[in-house]
Amino acid sequence: MKKSVLSLAVLTALAGLASGAQAQSSVTLFGVLDLNANQIKNGSAGSMKGLSQGALNTSRLGLRGIEDLGGGMSAAFHLEGQINPDNGTVTSVFWNRRSTVSLLGGWGELRLGRDYNPSSRNTYLFEPYIGTSVGTVLNFTLAPTATLGSGATTALRTNNAVAYFLPKGLGGIYGEAMVAPSEGAPGNKYLGARLGYNAGAFDISAAYGTTKTATTNDFKQWNIGASYTLGSVTLKGLYNVHEYGALKQKTTALGASVPMGAGEFRAMVAANKRDGGTAGTGFANGDDSRLLSAGYVHNLSKRTALYGFVGRISNDGSARLTVDGSSPAAMLAGETSSGYQLGITHRF
Amino acid sequence: MKKSVLSLAVLTALAGLASGAQAQSSVTLFGVLDLNANQIKNGSAGSMKGLSQGALNTSRLGLRGIEDLGGGMSAAFHLEGQINPDNGTVTSVFWNRRSTVSLLGGWGELRLGRDYNPSSRNTYLFEPYIGTSVGTVLNFTLAPTATLGSGATTALRTNNAVAYFLPKGLGGIYGEAMVAPSEGAPGNKYLGARLGYNAGAFDISAAYGTTKTATTNDFKQWNIGASYTLGSVTLKGLYNVHEYGALKQKTTALGASVPMGAGEFRAMVAANKRDGGTAGTGFANGDDSRLLSAGYVHNLSKRTALYGFVGRISNDGSARLTVDGSSPAAMLAGETSSGYQLGITHRF
Amino acid sequence: MKKSVLSLAVLTALAGLASGAQAQSSVTLFGVLDLNANQIKNGSAGSMKGLSQGALNTSRLGLRGIEDLGGGMSAAFHLEGQINPDNGTVTSVFWNRRSTVSLLGGWGELRLGRDYNPSSRNTYLFEPYIGTSVGTVLNFTLAPTATLGSGATTALRTNNAVAYFLPKGLGGIYGEAMVAPSEGAPGNKYLGARLGYNAGAFDISAAYGTTKTATTNDFKQWNIGASYTLGSVTLKGLYNVHEYGALKQKTTALGASVPMGAGEFRAMVAANKRDGGTAGTGFANGDDSRLLSAGYVHNLSKRTALYGFVGRISNDGSARLTVDGSSPAAMLAGETSSGYQLGITHRF
Repeated sequence: MKKSVLSLAVLTALAGLASGAQAQSSVTLFGVLDLNANQIKNGSAGSMKGLSQGALNTSRLGLRGIEDLGGGMSAAFHLEGQINPDNGTVTSVFWNRRSTVSLLGGWGELRLGRDYNPSSRNTYLFEPYIGTSVGTVLNFTLAPTATLGSGATTALRTNNAVAYFLPKGLGGIYGEAMVAPSEGAPGNKYLGARLGYNAGAFDISAAYGTTKTATTNDFKQWNIGASYTLGSVTLKGLYNVHEYGALKQKTTALGASVPMGAGEFRAMVAANKRDGGTAGTGFANGDDSRLLSAGYVHNLSKRTALYGFVGRISNDGSARLTVDGSSPAAMLAGETSSGYQLGITHRF
Repeated sequence: MKKSVLSLAVLTALAGLASGAQAQSSVTLFGVLDLNANQIKNGSAGSMKGLSQGALNTSRLGLRGIEDLGGGMSAAFHLEGQINPDNGTVTSVFWNRRSTVSLLGGWGELRLGRDYNPSSRNTYLFEPYIGTSVGTVLNFTLAPTATLGSGATTALRTNNAVAYFLPKGLGGIYGEAMVAPSEGAPGNKYLGARLGYNAGAFDISAAYGTTKTATTNDFKQWNIGASYTLGSVTLKGLYNVHEYGALKQKTTALGASVPMGAGEFRAMVAANKRDGGTAGTGFANGDDSRLLSAGYVHNLSKRTALYGFVGRISNDGSARLTVDGSSPAAMLAGETSSGYQLGITHRF
Repeated sequence: MKKSVLSLAVLTALAGLASGAQAQSSVTLFGVLDLNANQIKNGSAGSMKGLSQGALNTSRLGLRGIEDLGGGMSAAFHLEGQINPDNGTVTSVFWNRRSTVSLLGGWGELRLGRDYNPSSRNTYLFEPYIGTSVGTVLNFTLAPTATLGSGATTALRTNNAVAYFLPKGLGGIYGEAMVAPSEGAPGNKYLGARLGYNAGAFDISAAYGTTKTATTNDFKQWNIGASYTLGSVTLKGLYNVHEYGALKQKTTALGASVPMGAGEFRAMVAANKRDGGTAGTGFANGDDSRLLSAGYVHNLSKRTALYGFVGRISNDGSARLTVDGSSPAAMLAGETSSGYQLGITHRF
């Protein structure tokens, strides 16, 4: 998602830093603006039209750079934060998407700071929407109750993280591990890892993460994802489990993307099953949900695209999940949420 | 006001985007820092000295870019937010001045996001101060009661907007229309348009906008502005009306600007008339205000200028308008507000 | 600390600004990401591990530029704000480190906006840690009670400031003076100056600043600092006094830095003495503290370094100062605070 467009070589002469050894260093300013007209209908909460950001790609602004240290070593940084062009705001955490500094070498990468954790990264990579729109499986895994009421702050990204990434060139094997301290508060202390194998057309990866909470139970996420490209069709599958004490949420998704000329079709079916909670809370046995979604992306260039997405979540029992991740007070348990988004993405 | 200084060509080779068709694409980082020493006297609230930003141009930071899509089409984005160099803060909406993405072609421009709306844009363009300083007519139209207590959020800019701009080359005719949804809250739903004619030395434009509120009354703004350049003197005139139910505010302004060598003189007289409100609230018949202002801008370069502005608002009845747009609790109805600003603007 | 790495010449042709006179103009984007694994033990409040920013250099993002106005004059701006890459946040004042616009000439520099004030700048320059880490003397002078409860907002930086800097080429003499208005609130109105003499290996500077408060007593800071380079060893000494009515805090520090190949060793001893306060508050006679610290910086390049710092503050009487500037509620008066930091700094 880090489509670089404005890539600025470090002008070493001007900066007085000289030396040919740093000729490969660079700093890149990049971003995305994505806006769409949409209509969402959440059961008896009714229908609402709006202009929203981020259906194809989350709108963002970022800076990243890499410095050649010589001897096969590099230092790198990455700052990236969400922007909301519909109303000009940013998120309360300015560089909420990523803020890291890295050392890289033949031995891999040591990365410090805020970033996706291994167990969350292994979800959006294995669905055709890559984590956005009314169609994404994250409408299940990142619903308002993403961490099952555990108070874990690690549903998607983790602060204060020390992460290690395997180097490239291990015959298709890739992986990462992450540890983060509590810094004196519950919900922060994270330990997780991800291991995968990529053989060109076939890619499979599994991940596990655990977060300390204020109780004796840890919040746990584990999953396995795979993708397979057959001709022009790429199939993606994901099985993800969230656990907190007796509470369980199991999500299964199967999607496909098909490039056609300047465009790409996408479609997915997904199911969400919950168990272990008190009846009526939405977390008991039978509080299940199903997602059906499809989309089309039309590329005007490598940087700019038009798109349309449709999604529909039907809920059983006391489940109340929605296609926009909201939790509308007026929507009744078991009702259906659906919507469409028509928009434009521009990357720079 | 978007004086570009640092304009960076997209280095397509580095970014791996290649192709001559994108050679005209660019991303520009721009900004303004404007600080002035000032003294404002608001009737019996007394006099205060300060260092403030934005008398000649609002201090800001921005990024904008345009991509040539081929076939006469372009995609563009614009992010621009106010900064306050006097104390280092930014506004609560980071990109509060503009956050838009556009598609442009021979048919005009489709622009999505947050921006000035047609009815507000037609005010500051037709006064010599272009919306800033102790002299601006916006001290009337954007006073603390800009939308007459209607709760409309569209006094100056509008969120979630879908706007269309006429193309150039229509024989001097220009125009724009905007629609914005309520997104479930009162004060947001806007509909407006602006139509003008520019014949070189003569420019005239009228605009109308209406905003849904929590009551059955809409907040309405309409206005007509004109400018005429005679030799070195440019005259500007504006008539603006705000309406909300029985409440009315009518603003008339007549200004002039005269370039002289590296400098420019500016002067304006304006009158504000209110009607329809309860006696004592500042909105009844006779709660009128008059503004007298003048200024001088001395350009040190195309990017840097020194300036001085003076302004004076005299109030009748229960009116309490001030030259800095504040609403000092200690200032009595009918008192006079006046002040001066001596400062520097630097654009990059 | 403003190590420029990405320095972008103003592309005058693209920006349509042309002219050889502006050929020396430039805008520079710069920043620092500094993260460290650390452990701090604050007496009976116990020990905590964490990942924190800014032990070698405060993490930051900035923009600065200078424009040649011709005739020996220049205009310049500087925007710089802290970032916290450990969790992606920024500070509540976005450009909290500096936001200024300047006019420069043979007569010196006139600088408007938010910046260090003369009396605070004269502290961190005369210690080997330059104001950061568990080792810095700012753990005394910027402790939670930096301005002795006076409500002064000028402990480190000052808003709305008008500052004047002496020009270079005065035979080693340098200096600055600053004035800032109250803008109607106590704790803001500042007046201060700094005067120094630099004779190559020897540098000495004294400063004085006073801030109006809500009481009849001003908050006062004065200090004298000196450095002397003998062979490869640089010695730095500082004596700083804070006063507010009867309350006094006197800080003495003596440090050294020794470059060795690609690295640099640093060490310091410092003492903090307080007097004049009520017994038990930490500000009475005998509520003294001592700091012992050392560090090593290993430069991987001119932009990237690894580092390790250790610091220890022992407190007498009711003093409760800590190596991380925090004020842990559970730490008892007179206890010891100590910690280490192992990290990486990357500048761009």
